[in-house]
Amino acid sequence: MRGVMIHAPGDIRVEDRPDPVIEEPTDAIIRMAATCICGSDLWPYRGYGDIPEPAPMGHEYVGVVEEVGADVKNVKVGDFVIGSFFASDNTCEICQDGYQSRCVNNVGMGGIGTQSEYARIPLADGTLVATPSQPTDEQIPHLLAASDVLGTGWFAAVAAEVGPGKTVAVVGDGAVGLSGVLAAKQLGAERIIAMSRHKDRQALATKFGATDIVEERGDAGVKKVKELTGGLGAHCVIEAVGTQEAMQQAIKSTRPGGHVGFVGVSHGISIDGGQLFMSEVHLHGGPAPVRRFLPELIDLIMKGEITPGDVFDLTLPLEQAAEGYTAMDERRATKVLLTV
Amino acid sequence: MRGVMIHAPGDIRVEDRPDPVIEEPTDAIIRMAATCICGSDLWPYRGYGDIPEPAPMGHEYVGVVEEVGADVKNVKVGDFVIGSFFASDNTCEICQDGYQSRCVNNVGMGGIGTQSEYARIPLADGTLVATPSQPTDEQIPHLLAASDVLGTGWFAAVAAEVGPGKTVAVVGDGAVGLSGVLAAKQLGAERIIAMSRHKDRQALATKFGATDIVEERGDAGVKKVKELTGGLGAHCVIEAVGTQEAMQQAIKSTRPGGHVGFVGVSHGISIDGGQLFMSEVHLHGGPAPVRRFLPELIDLIMKGEITPGDVFDLTLPLEQAAEGYTAMDERRATKVLLTV
Repeated sequence: MRGVMIHAPGDIRVEDRPDPVIEEPTDAIIRMAATCICGSDLWPYRGYGDIPEPAPMGHEYVGVVEEVGADVKNVKVGDFVIGSFFASDNTCEICQDGYQSRCVNNVGMGGIGTQSEYARIPLADGTLVATPSQPTDEQIPHLLAASDVLGTGWFAAVAAEVGPGKTVAVVGDGAVGLSGVLAAKQLGAERIIAMSRHKDRQALATKFGATDIVEERGDAGVKKVKELTGGLGAHCVIEAVGTQEAMQQAIKSTRPGGHVGFVGVSHGISIDGGQLFMSEVHLHGGPAPVRRFLPELIDLIMKGEITPGDVFDLTLPLEQAAEGYTAMDERRATKVLLTV
Repeated sequence: MRGVMIHAPGDIRVEDRPDPVIEEPTDAIIRMAATCICGSDLWPYRGYGDIPEPAPMGHEYVGVVEEVGADVKNVKVGDFVIGSFFASDNTCEICQDGYQSRCVNNVGMGGIGTQSEYARIPLADGTLVATPSQPTDEQIPHLLAASDVLGTGWFAAVAAEVGPGKTVAVVGDGAVGLSGVLAAKQLGAERIIAMSRHKDRQALATKFGATDIVEERGDAGVKKVKELTGGLGAHCVIEAVGTQEAMQQAIKSTRPGGHVGFVGVSHGISIDGGQLFMSEVHLHGGPAPVRRFLPELIDLIMKGEITPGDVFDLTLPLEQAAEGYTAMDERRATKVLLTV
């Protein structure tokens, strides 16, 4: 099969890779319907972390089940399925508590690489969720978004305890931040402040439910959020960047007793204990347990109530994956869908 | 009146101070029934922070209302009342959300100094809670404990989302940690692991409801908690120390998706964002909004259901406050009650 490999920073190639096979009786093989490039894929692309040998890329996927192992019972050949960036058994105590991202048996999908024609999905019964019927072509990008960015933005909103009557601020206008806006709207937020200085992203934030746009960053952004919230700060703040500045902006924009939900993969963040103590905010985040939310997200998408795939602003065939990486790296695209 | 003043590290004196008077129509003057020395009072005593001029000490108190300002309606002369270390209006949006410690009009009681015969209590209507009847002498220490250590331990347990069926670990065996054990028991925890290496404190922890004692600290303590929890970690962890080691012990002892409630006043704590991200724990804490819990705590104490004043293991007259500070500093006493 064909699949995306990274050889070195900036060096993305689409190559022949071995067709995946069932290795464990709990595996399934899926034929990709679509896959995409994640903001986190840009870290190795930009030279963060070692690349000791060529490695497969991608961890977002939707597709059709081609083959299942002997123990797989919840999905069958021909099902259209969605999974996420961790394979999880969905039965251990941690999964049952809703933290499938930390399943005691979890397997990261990064090593498998889903920017490819086929993929082996471990722990298929726990990991994959089938759609109730075959989706239309129009629904596929929305379902693909649920595989990571929507699930991650949704988790951030849940972690920030978004609910009816709440004022929510969203730090970060990438695909995850924008998905966080959509999630906040769905979860009933009264007011959603999107922090963005890019017109096209502001427009999508507004489409997704943002009621206010703040262009300022850092302490100026915090001041603006305070002004919009009677001097108190937002009840709920979503941090979807992962830098020290963004985390500071998030904590300082939150009122005492409020909640920060953070999902930006941490790069160099350090939180001062004294500041956190005096802020009296709640902090919760990490790798999103997307699996927890998939049934609900699939339902909303299949009913046409949300269109999270609007975050894809560039679609390319898998063979042109390298161009997709370049476009995202140069910020010419927010999120790239790869057709397979 | 007589009151405790700090002149320099290690230099505690009981002196004549001016009798407090009503300054604002929302003030009340109370005659102290009992007061006490807080672990946080030891920080300036030990030389942390500046003492530019002699300063009054104390922020814990129970007493009888002597006089009220013209606007005070909720308490009256003769009421036996309890307040805490922040005066709060209890009507602002932040107070109504349960964060009276961050009331938009809050006043710290440290500047007032309640290790004294009388004290002026600002925002009396919001700050003070009257007991339903005059307490007995035996009940006074328990009510005094509610003023800070019990209220703080209770907040830590609530912040850690303690509830029925939960396993709770408590880092710190001072008066607040021990109060956290008591709170966890009252809140229905199934298993309470007290981390302590002092026999007398272990005994009180057990009396308060601890089911397990772990003597190990740091990573060895974490390992022990993991062993006691099927390798997963506790659902809820109370951090009641305020040091880097204690916070690390707390975070690492918590299972993914679990909750850390931290109330140890932070001294030099720095939390690595990457560690927090991957831990997937919830973090919440800060200065306890004791006022939120006072009505419930007073009710439990007056009914004899809890005896939080058991944390007092040394009682001295106010005039011997200096000896009380020395005893706590030298760890000869866990918590010192001063009779007035």
